[in-house]
Amino acid sequence: MKLVKPKIRYLSAYEAKEIPCRVKLDANESPYGFKKVLRVLKPIETNRYPDPEAKAYKKALSQYFRVSPPNILQGNGSDELIYYLITTFGGPVLYPIPTFSMYGIITQAIGEEKIEIPLDKEFDLNLEKILKAIKRLKPKLIFLSSPNNPTGNCFSSEKILKIIESTLSLAIVVIDEAYQPFSSKMGFLPLLKDYKNLVIMRTLSKIGLAGLRVGFLIADKEIINEVNKVRLPFNLNSLSQAIAIEVLKDKKILQSHIKTIISERDKLFNELAKIDGVNPYPSEANFILFKVKNPDGIYKGLLKEGVLVRNMKGVVNGCLRVTIGTPEENRIFISALKKVISIEKT
Amino acid sequence: MKLVKPKIRYLSAYEAKEIPCRVKLDANESPYGFKKVLRVLKPIETNRYPDPEAKAYKKALSQYFRVSPPNILQGNGSDELIYYLITTFGGPVLYPIPTFSMYGIITQAIGEEKIEIPLDKEFDLNLEKILKAIKRLKPKLIFLSSPNNPTGNCFSSEKILKIIESTLSLAIVVIDEAYQPFSSKMGFLPLLKDYKNLVIMRTLSKIGLAGLRVGFLIADKEIINEVNKVRLPFNLNSLSQAIAIEVLKDKKILQSHIKTIISERDKLFNELAKIDGVNPYPSEANFILFKVKNPDGIYKGLLKEGVLVRNMKGVVNGCLRVTIGTPEENRIFISALKKVISIEKT
Repeated sequence: MKLVKPKIRYLSAYEAKEIPCRVKLDANESPYGFKKVLRVLKPIETNRYPDPEAKAYKKALSQYFRVSPPNILQGNGSDELIYYLITTFGGPVLYPIPTFSMYGIITQAIGEEKIEIPLDKEFDLNLEKILKAIKRLKPKLIFLSSPNNPTGNCFSSEKILKIIESTLSLAIVVIDEAYQPFSSKMGFLPLLKDYKNLVIMRTLSKIGLAGLRVGFLIADKEIINEVNKVRLPFNLNSLSQAIAIEVLKDKKILQSHIKTIISERDKLFNELAKIDGVNPYPSEANFILFKVKNPDGIYKGLLKEGVLVRNMKGVVNGCLRVTIGTPEENRIFISALKKVISIEKT
Repeated sequence: MKLVKPKIRYLSAYEAKEIPCRVKLDANESPYGFKKVLRVLKPIETNRYPDPEAKAYKKALSQYFRVSPPNILQGNGSDELIYYLITTFGGPVLYPIPTFSMYGIITQAIGEEKIEIPLDKEFDLNLEKILKAIKRLKPKLIFLSSPNNPTGNCFSSEKILKIIESTLSLAIVVIDEAYQPFSSKMGFLPLLKDYKNLVIMRTLSKIGLAGLRVGFLIADKEIINEVNKVRLPFNLNSLSQAIAIEVLKDKKILQSHIKTIISERDKLFNELAKIDGVNPYPSEANFILFKVKNPDGIYKGLLKEGVLVRNMKGVVNGCLRVTIGTPEENRIFISALKKVISIEKT
């Protein structure tokens, strides 16, 4: 279509196929929801616009994460916040690969330039190349997902710090901590006060509220104020605000879900490591990346058994990614995987 | 902040003040909600990502509006769709003024050029000026809100048609029909098949679901496909999808709410016209714009009585805008207005 901006014309839309399955372990969702909290929706007047400032939601976040509300910006999922960050600061946008695909997709949709720097063999940041690219190509925004999706590891804190320090007044460094709740490493929240160019992106999507689209930024007030200028006034609907507030009230339940997922992840890792022909990568997230000999065949075999995982073809070749499910789902997955691999061998 | 793009740096964020009141008639919401439909949320797994294609939601819309699902694009409110349209087609963006403020706000946030053409004295389109601007400034996108907010009238269909025909392969013309359910004039849906550059924007926000952020575009498949490329995959949360589907099932309730609002609007218009010093403008929407001698004083006086309306200062000087409420709310508004005006006179 001629009227479309050239940069958009040659893009393809993000394709999200829906694949029927019995055990869904492909999307890094939490297997645990919060049905009971739906009762808080009763007093909500759907006919009224949502609170454009999401005050109660930000207050609940501020209490949970011990940051002050003016340091928080609400998003309709992290995706929308990535959109807003790029709209606010522009490009080039630098990020390592492989990583969360939306950094690149949104950069391209907005029409800014991408700088993609491959991770090293340990899936850690290639600091030398990144620092060179910063000098030469002057990115305005740097996205670092740590723990990283789909590799599961945290990047070296020292390397992240060097990147932040090398870009102090030159670029915004966004640490996407979507998977931080599952990590044994310290997050970057305590460093916010020291670095004015640091933005932490978090979400409730991985801890039980993926359907609600509740992401948020935590950063210096000045950054929050600027990004807030390009935010749509009613970006977060009333129901999502209400449920997030209710869920954040009960730290115990959230923490117990997270603990279960971490302990299941560690069990699953050991199980995977024991299987001949399967090489799992250590994970600080709610998923495990693992290498197999015939990923396409194993992906299809698992699906035949009703288990949906993510085939990482084209992203990390030879690998599949499995989300940690309930203990029962993980058991089904492991036994299906063993079965499929034994069939493969014959 | 130096790192921010210059076009954003000098912007101010949209300010949505929250004003406590007893009768809220300032935001063109419906006074009627749908509490009962919340029961459809029970089976929803908040921990799963929403359907990125919103298939069931689009199907429900397609049945209600008698258009085919591939001609529909879902938005997190119309606001988000305006963002996507401008991201897809770029600027300059032309629209008449006064009109819905988000066309200008979002154009500026994205950093595209605005072309604002004042309406004529009857609040209709100034066709001559618009056609001249089209020739000279070559807008890529034209937004026409009809019925127009805040003036309440529909633009002349002949003028709209001439604009569409003068821009066939040069610009996309978006008719924002947010208020069409309340209009006695024919909407533009039937013309979609004739004009490949026509986009209809609709929303459920004015008919009872403002809190849910459920807007949508209807257009030629080619346009939908292009705009879909810049859409975030999970832009519409699960709860909003589910409730919209449920509400759209019951055409009778929706229609009866709309009928009541229309008949209340017409009553309210007559009441307003009878008050000395009040000049209401005829409305095809769910609000009435009216002129008074001391709008600031009357706005404040109404608020003292607990009635919140919108002061249109700076947009249509001398005017207030009142949303049609329930019969009871409208009665409270009229008696408060009479009281305030009589106090003003003394």
